[in-house]
Amino acid sequence: MKRIFSVLVENRSGVLCKVAGLFSRRSYNIDSLAVGETEDKSVSVMTIVSSGDERTMEQIEKQLNKKLDIIKVKTFTEENSMCRELMLIKVKYQSGNRSDIIEICNVLNASVLDMSSSSLLIQICDAPEKIELLIKMLTPFGIVELARTGTLSLQKCSENEKAK
Amino acid sequence: MKRIFSVLVENRSGVLCKVAGLFSRRSYNIDSLAVGETEDKSVSVMTIVSSGDERTMEQIEKQLNKKLDIIKVKTFTEENSMCRELMLIKVKYQSGNRSDIIEICNVLNASVLDMSSSSLLIQICDAPEKIELLIKMLTPFGIVELARTGTLSLQKCSENEKAK
Repeated sequence: MKRIFSVLVENRSGVLCKVAGLFSRRSYNIDSLAVGETEDKSVSVMTIVSSGDERTMEQIEKQLNKKLDIIKVKTFTEENSMCRELMLIKVKYQSGNRSDIIEICNVLNASVLDMSSSSLLIQICDAPEKIELLIKMLTPFGIVELARTGTLSLQKCSENEKAK
Repeated sequence: MKRIFSVLVENRSGVLCKVAGLFSRRSYNIDSLAVGETEDKSVSVMTIVSSGDERTMEQIEKQLNKKLDIIKVKTFTEENSMCRELMLIKVKYQSGNRSDIIEICNVLNASVLDMSSSSLLIQICDAPEKIELLIKMLTPFGIVELARTGTLSLQKCSENEKAK
């Protein structure tokens, strides 16, 4: 099973190391990780996607809650949250196949950020399976390089949400 | 000065901890971090944005290159690369101001992923300063929660790119 942990942490040096250490010492699997600021500069949010059995997932949540620098841990499943990922991918083209690549980008809602006479730099921001699909569709043209963020996740909208 | 390190690492448990440890032991600053897979599942790419003087940046690059699990380190500046960040943000609305929020989203190329009768879940994928601007524009409405990835970066397109 896949579980998404959204962890609010104090934004100070060493916290990332502690959280990464917790996972590696206990051999918990990190499928993906995204670390970024929140609207409060002293607080960062780490979105960790992990997979394993139910018991392991509960243990991870408990261990995270014990750490001093961690402010709050929220746990999502793929069903009750919106998951998005960002990828930048550079792909080669020849004179004959550029419009093929652009057509694929249009279908998958990806956009071209930069180009030269031999390559295109493409951005996509979508659910993880759409990112996989774009990689698969672009591989035959020749991928020069790519970079991907981990999965980012927020709980879907519910009634009576409260602002902080 | 700001420097972007794009670090190809072996995708195995403990590598993240080693890299995070290198930064925290030496008190190097991590402004943002994104970790994700590449097209080769055994290789992950960590995009680390750090700031400090020229000498510190050179030291970080040297230290990273010494680590065994690190396959390749590439260094970018903000000028020679495309930087993108992803944010999910949930914002409250009242009956009178929903179209205001949607107008702001249209101007800043953000899109609404989910809604309830009291809140909107919005996605934006853009340069870091555009993300900051959206946060600033939405703050008066009441932010319920937000999550942000670190900055992702690829070198701009050049001539004669080679596919891997």
